[in-house]
Amino acid sequence: MKLKMMYSFLNSDINVIEKKLEETIQSESLLLKAASLHTLKAGGKRIRPVFVLLAGKFGHYDIEVMKNVAVPLELIHMASLVHDDVIDDADIRRGQPTVKAKWDNRIAMYTGDYIFALSLELMTNINKPEAHKILAHTMVELTVGEIQQIKDKYRFNQTLRDYLRRIKRKTALLIAASCQLGAIAADVEESIHKKLYRFGYYVGMSFQITDDILDFTATEKELGKPAGSDLLQGNITAPALFAMENEEIRLQIEKVHENMSAAEIEHIISLIKKSGAIEKSIALSDHYLDKALAVLEDLPTNKTKKTLRDIAKFIGRRKF
Amino acid sequence: MKLKMMYSFLNSDINVIEKKLEETIQSESLLLKAASLHTLKAGGKRIRPVFVLLAGKFGHYDIEVMKNVAVPLELIHMASLVHDDVIDDADIRRGQPTVKAKWDNRIAMYTGDYIFALSLELMTNINKPEAHKILAHTMVELTVGEIQQIKDKYRFNQTLRDYLRRIKRKTALLIAASCQLGAIAADVEESIHKKLYRFGYYVGMSFQITDDILDFTATEKELGKPAGSDLLQGNITAPALFAMENEEIRLQIEKVHENMSAAEIEHIISLIKKSGAIEKSIALSDHYLDKALAVLEDLPTNKTKKTLRDIAKFIGRRKF
Repeated sequence: MKLKMMYSFLNSDINVIEKKLEETIQSESLLLKAASLHTLKAGGKRIRPVFVLLAGKFGHYDIEVMKNVAVPLELIHMASLVHDDVIDDADIRRGQPTVKAKWDNRIAMYTGDYIFALSLELMTNINKPEAHKILAHTMVELTVGEIQQIKDKYRFNQTLRDYLRRIKRKTALLIAASCQLGAIAADVEESIHKKLYRFGYYVGMSFQITDDILDFTATEKELGKPAGSDLLQGNITAPALFAMENEEIRLQIEKVHENMSAAEIEHIISLIKKSGAIEKSIALSDHYLDKALAVLEDLPTNKTKKTLRDIAKFIGRRKF
Repeated sequence: MKLKMMYSFLNSDINVIEKKLEETIQSESLLLKAASLHTLKAGGKRIRPVFVLLAGKFGHYDIEVMKNVAVPLELIHMASLVHDDVIDDADIRRGQPTVKAKWDNRIAMYTGDYIFALSLELMTNINKPEAHKILAHTMVELTVGEIQQIKDKYRFNQTLRDYLRRIKRKTALLIAASCQLGAIAADVEESIHKKLYRFGYYVGMSFQITDDILDFTATEKELGKPAGSDLLQGNITAPALFAMENEEIRLQIEKVHENMSAAEIEHIISLIKKSGAIEKSIALSDHYLDKALAVLEDLPTNKTKKTLRDIAKFIGRRKF
């Protein structure tokens, strides 16, 4: 089953979100508008808005309120990708040139800043101090995660714990916040929105580990960028870390540098794939997925709960 | 009279702000902490916090509340400078190496993001939706101003209107917001906090025009960076725009490029200084200063009003 089929009952609301996303990034600066629109149109799964909406279904759901949370969370994600691509010197994302490639690093920096600021402006329509505290704290953690990623680049002696802490900040907390803030916007009681936060956190961990596996196992066409890009850019993820448990493979991986030839990196990728590291990474992703599903069990039973379960399983086990 | 003497009655509160600034930028990431602290310690006039505090004196002033507005506004200013220095490729600010020079552009980008996020987190202690709306909107305008500055670099056919619109966004709105948010935090009534906003806006315009004049007239020692840096970096400010009214000088200025020799740029600066453009720029600054002082007349009389008048005159007419 395709992801979109799982929440087809939200289709009209997802259209509201898409429209609001496009409306929000309008700007009298044609350059900012073009760069932001380019990022928006490059696509994405819109997972954060979907989680916001689904979490809202546990309370008093009003799409006109929910969109003021769903859109900012997607925008924050988009802005962080724009800045990410500067750091990673990435020219391609989702099969499209990145802002930094189509324009330049400076434009990408301010396009990211602009999208961040827009997201905050929209969120101010939500008159709940707690929501703003959670969002701001998530943004602080996100930037700490980003800087950690820079520091950890090509640092081959990092541990799995370093990796988990980094993906928590870089990915899981924003998905956790999406679930929690969607619930808070819909006046869901604290005991439930806290559970939704935990659900989002575990799903986010599983999601990112799966993403990191796919960077090794999917094709360039599926990924929208060359396979093995993460490793080539020095981002050491779960499969590489598990593979390095083997001393011989470790010595090979430690040779990775950004100007490595395609043949060389392909050789290393094949070593990692043959090492059993992919299977260990899948088990790690499943570990978080199971925790997510366990949290779900504890939530009130409704139609949404089943959808959340389907989506969690899908994004934790997707093939690309 | 020195600036600090004008608000000496605020000294103990300014110390609270300094302490809170330092406390806020602590981070478990040693790199982020070092880069943020470096920026903080490079100094600055702390004009935005001073305006926040003075505006608060029109209402129920509690330093423990006021600091949650004063510190974020200084942090947003700091963050924008860190990103600015990436765009301007500036190695020196306030006599110190910039973050992008001491570390690199990537670290500077995330240090800016981090400081922005911290400022938002601290502001969430202020439970006034209006304040958050004003701040978020100011941040959007700030980024539009920044991107405008990139687009306008070395664009010699820009108008004075383009320049004024840019400095409004880049500087004046944040000072306006400082005055207004300080007042809102202290429960000042709307008619008065709106006047304080206008006061801040006019002072901000005068402040930036003066800053742009000093880039031509002050010494390298006073500026903490080489004189004429703005023009060399392609930032066309009031003095250059007025000087270009003279066709011969226009032709000279249009030759400016970033790799120009020190002797060449010095020659052009001397042409601008002799053209009467500095005097015209001072008149422009004074025009905004007069408007600021006129708004002040309309405010309730108290000790603070005199201080605001002194500071406005100082920063609109300062020598460096």
